[in-house]
Amino acid sequence: MSLTEQMTALAKQAKIASRQLTTLTRQQKDACLLAMADAINSAAPAILAANAADLKIASGMGLSSAMLERLELNEKKIAGMADGIREVAGLPDPVGKLLDDRVRPNGLKLRKITAPLGVVVIIYESRPNVTADAASLCFKAGSATILRGGKEALNSNRMIADVMVRAASKVLPNFPEHAIQVVPTTDRAAIPELLSLTSYIDLCMPRGGEGLIRAVTECSKVPVIKHYKGVCHVYVDGAADEKMGVEIVVNAKCQRPSVCNAAETLLVDKSIAGTFLPAVYPGLAAHNVELRADASALGILQSKLNNPQTTIRAACEPDWETEYNDYILNVKIVDGINDAIAHINTHGSGHSDVIVTADETLANKFLQEVDSAAVYWNASTRFTDGGEFGMGAEIGISTDKIGARGPMGLDELVTYKWHCLGAGQVR
Amino acid sequence: MSLTEQMTALAKQAKIASRQLTTLTRQQKDACLLAMADAINSAAPAILAANAADLKIASGMGLSSAMLERLELNEKKIAGMADGIREVAGLPDPVGKLLDDRVRPNGLKLRKITAPLGVVVIIYESRPNVTADAASLCFKAGSATILRGGKEALNSNRMIADVMVRAASKVLPNFPEHAIQVVPTTDRAAIPELLSLTSYIDLCMPRGGEGLIRAVTECSKVPVIKHYKGVCHVYVDGAADEKMGVEIVVNAKCQRPSVCNAAETLLVDKSIAGTFLPAVYPGLAAHNVELRADASALGILQSKLNNPQTTIRAACEPDWETEYNDYILNVKIVDGINDAIAHINTHGSGHSDVIVTADETLANKFLQEVDSAAVYWNASTRFTDGGEFGMGAEIGISTDKIGARGPMGLDELVTYKWHCLGAGQVR
Repeated sequence: MSLTEQMTALAKQAKIASRQLTTLTRQQKDACLLAMADAINSAAPAILAANAADLKIASGMGLSSAMLERLELNEKKIAGMADGIREVAGLPDPVGKLLDDRVRPNGLKLRKITAPLGVVVIIYESRPNVTADAASLCFKAGSATILRGGKEALNSNRMIADVMVRAASKVLPNFPEHAIQVVPTTDRAAIPELLSLTSYIDLCMPRGGEGLIRAVTECSKVPVIKHYKGVCHVYVDGAADEKMGVEIVVNAKCQRPSVCNAAETLLVDKSIAGTFLPAVYPGLAAHNVELRADASALGILQSKLNNPQTTIRAACEPDWETEYNDYILNVKIVDGINDAIAHINTHGSGHSDVIVTADETLANKFLQEVDSAAVYWNASTRFTDGGEFGMGAEIGISTDKIGARGPMGLDELVTYKWHCLGAGQVR
Repeated sequence: MSLTEQMTALAKQAKIASRQLTTLTRQQKDACLLAMADAINSAAPAILAANAADLKIASGMGLSSAMLERLELNEKKIAGMADGIREVAGLPDPVGKLLDDRVRPNGLKLRKITAPLGVVVIIYESRPNVTADAASLCFKAGSATILRGGKEALNSNRMIADVMVRAASKVLPNFPEHAIQVVPTTDRAAIPELLSLTSYIDLCMPRGGEGLIRAVTECSKVPVIKHYKGVCHVYVDGAADEKMGVEIVVNAKCQRPSVCNAAETLLVDKSIAGTFLPAVYPGLAAHNVELRADASALGILQSKLNNPQTTIRAACEPDWETEYNDYILNVKIVDGINDAIAHINTHGSGHSDVIVTADETLANKFLQEVDSAAVYWNASTRFTDGGEFGMGAEIGISTDKIGARGPMGLDELVTYKWHCLGAGQVR
């Protein structure tokens, strides 16, 4: 079988499975999920054995220790996967929710109702836990999944999916076995093949670094929901509470710099820069944050700080659009809120941006004009997260404007359709 | 300036304009729209002159009389355009609607609020009225538009857009003049250039025949919302009211066969085919509908009808997936509802499909399992339309599952963002 035939068969099976998933009740889906969770726990030895095989191959491939750590499973991580699936079982069913309801003058009743997407392809990097997370969320949302993890995790991913499908089939004899499938090859050419199959695949969600996401988006003919990167900003306005500004900046940068909702750039209004920059510096220096500053900020930092503990240097143009995932922060002095908004809308990634101010009018202007998925007034960017937003489990964060925007939970994993109920109406 | 530079400049200007549009109030937008409508009326002579120039070139190009008729404007069509714009002014503002509202345990207030998309590209065929319709809807939704009509309508389209922009600029001195732009060239290469500019363009909506839409979708790097075609079905179930079934089938096929929500295929349950096909035939024959039937249906039609008035022939495989836009109907006998649903989900276009039945359980099964934008129980497919759905003006119909699905009015022309209001919360 050629790769094209193999991917077509996979996608076609997924489509057929997705049709059967539309017929399942919430009770049936939750019973399957709970069985999957129990099976993940009890199959821990088999999963660990598959993972050990992956780790052996991976260390032979010369993977970094960070990569190996992400790949490695243990009893605790496996228990975490099972708990994650149980949590999904406990969440409300996102399918069948009434979004709108209207009766037309001719008596036609229209109901806008959430419905499953169909077939979702998830492309991700090495952590095998994503297999269980993504498959369980999509299953609860009534969709079939095709999972493509890192090539170094193939044995782990296949074992996890296999355990889940076998467990569900025991609880529900007509469980469609192709509802959860792992792409059975590590051939990179499989991805463009799969993502050209617009008749069978409804959505692709890539999760990983910007390179992976750009490569997927470039080759895909099916819709892709994604964020490329998180270049998040904190704008400290002239009317900001200085102490609050310091806490938010330090938290947004330092609490977990490796994630997409960490801040990369601090914008400070020129009216307070002279006092705010020296005030925020100690908190950043305590985390060894390197500062990359525009000329004005550099001037203030150099004149006001004696013997700075961290690197402070001039920012270069690409810095303003870089997601560092590290203890590095750009600093720029802006001339009021319009300048701040223009900088964010030009250089930002449309992810999460903050204004710190006591002025409600300015805050509302910022909320309205900053073109990002999440816009904050007086809080840290770090809250852009499905759990923090109260969505339960999260499948990802979108900076797209078509479909879901911001954190994506179960409710963002469905489409809708119109049920039109008549009594013989014709036009 | 190269074509790439020209399209980049156009898109960049649109993006800047779109930023300014986010600051407009409903009152400002409506005042602009009303001024645009008045100006369209009073500029009728200039618009007709531009249209006459287009018509002269077009008749030299040997366009069909149907195409020339679509291109031709007159006083009545111009008044219709103006009325359409006034109607848009009267519709509620789709921007700033609260979709969700939650307070997290840490006191963070989250508000999910509709927001403008940004820059929308509309690609359409010859009718110049689309220029006014699409531009006014997008403007009301807070987005800038880049319009690309048929090459034969360039003068008309430019004049209409120009009249609208000049009128709005008089009412609102800071009206961004690039909020409504017509692509100033007929070069086909402009489309892929434009649709590669993902930093500036948020959405493309192609409107026209399947060929146009496929070509646009193929070349686009920006999200596209569209429907390729409407292959709509009426399934007459064994428990159908025969008279209602006849009325719905004849209406869905014959009331306006040229549109996407007209039916192309009649599916009849085998238990009633022997009586239903002869019953429905006269209504279809009265409109000279050609029937393309599967073997069983052909057998029934040939045995029960004496001297049929219309062509009745065997359907071939591609017929089941063809949008005829004409008085032609496929007819197939199915073995119950599962067979009907499988046929629709395999051969349909996910647009509009009907079950005619008195059995509520079967109807609910059909509503749940048919994977289409609009699924009907006992009504004609012809209601899938923004006006009929009570949306006011319609910009198009989507069979996509990401973003809007089904008829698209103003509410479907926006995205959302999260406003996150804190009091200094950090993680």
